[in-house]
Amino acid sequence: MSPKAPAPNPETTMRDVAAAAGVSLPTVSKVVNGRSDVSKQTRARVERAIEESGYVTRTPTRRPGAGGSRLVDLVVYDLESAYSLEVIRGVEEELEEAGLSVVVSAVHGEQQRARKWVESLRARSTTGAILVLWNTDLSELAALRTLRIPLVVLDPWGVPDPDMASVGATNFQGAYEAVEHLVALGHRRVAFIGGSPTLPASRARQGGYRAALESRGVEVDPDLIADGNFLIDGGYEQGLRLLAPANRPTAIFAGTDMQAMGVYRAARELGLRIPEDLSVVGFDDVPIADLASPGLTTVRQPLAEMGAVAARQLVQIKNGEQLKTLRVELATSLVVRESTCAPPSA
Amino acid sequence: MSPKAPAPNPETTMRDVAAAAGVSLPTVSKVVNGRSDVSKQTRARVERAIEESGYVTRTPTRRPGAGGSRLVDLVVYDLESAYSLEVIRGVEEELEEAGLSVVVSAVHGEQQRARKWVESLRARSTTGAILVLWNTDLSELAALRTLRIPLVVLDPWGVPDPDMASVGATNFQGAYEAVEHLVALGHRRVAFIGGSPTLPASRARQGGYRAALESRGVEVDPDLIADGNFLIDGGYEQGLRLLAPANRPTAIFAGTDMQAMGVYRAARELGLRIPEDLSVVGFDDVPIADLASPGLTTVRQPLAEMGAVAARQLVQIKNGEQLKTLRVELATSLVVRESTCAPPSA
Repeated sequence: MSPKAPAPNPETTMRDVAAAAGVSLPTVSKVVNGRSDVSKQTRARVERAIEESGYVTRTPTRRPGAGGSRLVDLVVYDLESAYSLEVIRGVEEELEEAGLSVVVSAVHGEQQRARKWVESLRARSTTGAILVLWNTDLSELAALRTLRIPLVVLDPWGVPDPDMASVGATNFQGAYEAVEHLVALGHRRVAFIGGSPTLPASRARQGGYRAALESRGVEVDPDLIADGNFLIDGGYEQGLRLLAPANRPTAIFAGTDMQAMGVYRAARELGLRIPEDLSVVGFDDVPIADLASPGLTTVRQPLAEMGAVAARQLVQIKNGEQLKTLRVELATSLVVRESTCAPPSA
Repeated sequence: MSPKAPAPNPETTMRDVAAAAGVSLPTVSKVVNGRSDVSKQTRARVERAIEESGYVTRTPTRRPGAGGSRLVDLVVYDLESAYSLEVIRGVEEELEEAGLSVVVSAVHGEQQRARKWVESLRARSTTGAILVLWNTDLSELAALRTLRIPLVVLDPWGVPDPDMASVGATNFQGAYEAVEHLVALGHRRVAFIGGSPTLPASRARQGGYRAALESRGVEVDPDLIADGNFLIDGGYEQGLRLLAPANRPTAIFAGTDMQAMGVYRAARELGLRIPEDLSVVGFDDVPIADLASPGLTTVRQPLAEMGAVAARQLVQIKNGEQLKTLRVELATSLVVRESTCAPPSA
């Protein structure tokens, strides 16, 4: 449960919520029961009233947070990337030890799927939810809070709310070391491909990239900073674009391993050899980094361990234990493989 | 529900089961409630008695198969391989359409984890289960059947029981085409790395391998047939072993893409170039096949679609619909990339 929300108040009735929101009792009931025949505005108003009044929704069919459910929900952006798989693995292993099972859902950044998922929680009980989303604009977060279940956020979403428990990696530091490695090899034209610029994890990686260049006296060229989507196609498209001009970069810090694989493909199509013509560094160290040829130099973030920590936090919140800290950042480490070497001109 | 098991008989009491099993009433109760203080032998006896008597377990805390749970269980061997991720994706997408959520568990071939998972089903309700296991020796299957929930098996486990709904791919045909492709390129010394020989999917692939060689008049050399584990390390270890002798094979049909990646690593360590010195073919076509360098020639099985079909079957069984066929095999197709060419001597 978010510490920011007012304490749940069992005294508050649905009638109080209706009065506070200025709507009818059936309207509140519709929102609480996840019905879709309510306008977005009205729904938001009712959800705010629920939040502010501390109203605890209760229906005979569900008891959110009830210990009996033995289920924890894990929501990921997609089920295509190895990133999701690593997180699922860590969460599942940790929960299995605690005698809990994990319900996995993918929302694909679609409002409607996120909404459906929140509605499904109203229809069944869950111990709590771990959110791994690439989207800070999740208006469902408010609806989720009305369920008053424990919530933990895992990067790359970052910290949507400083009062919420969250787990991440040292994105800034990891990016800093990656770019420092490239500059130390002699690279001066180093490009960066990020995810969405609103994504905190992406912002932190770009920050580390800039800081490393500046600390070594290398000017930051805005033309070498591109927005991808952290997935293969983002790396491929931005890779093609960055590598087209004559004064192309000699190295690309690709933001994620998936984007690095997209850059590999772009380089192959353009007839550029890695690392002789182009050095590439990823971020994540999912299995593909080691399996790729050449092996990908990358920033390892311990995704499975991050999933395990998020699961542990959730169980602690559920048990009413005090978390030592709301934000946990696990250390990244640079893994040097074969995709980086000195630039051609050096 | 398995059609092989006797019809559920609501008239059967726990006392009948105790009498049939020759144990006390509390012992039956322990087994039904998933308590661990029962010997393995006794548990097996009670489970058989439950199965044969058609006893339907019922406790106030759970209603297996009850439509209200909105949950389907998916059990996979591991959460490391891309294979699992593809299946999860297909299952999740299909269930999401049906308004159901998926609970994901990994058993890692461990009896104890499988046992714990079955016990967790006794403690909560589930609509049914999809099993993706690399283990035909799952003694938990009997325990699972006493829950009398819909079950669907997805390859590679194959068909543990012809009366059970199952989904697979055309393993024999896929392997046949893969090896035919190699022989057509001129290869005569073609090795095969399978999974466990007891695994039906592995047996079918080996069958296709043998048949393709024989149909082209190439003698099958037993020294070129190796048992791996369908994972990277299996491919690596068997790859090293197969490639050590002077009369090493000129091509390896690696059984799975993961094993092919292990063969890539072994070849790299031995200084063998792919495909110039060694052709490699995988099976699965998980994303790594396309991302690897050189791109891996492989047999594509539509894993996500197989997951979706399994989920659809489960929903049909739950709704009491008649399945058109208990065994569905989706077609494989050969995807030729850069890892295969004519042998060095040809």
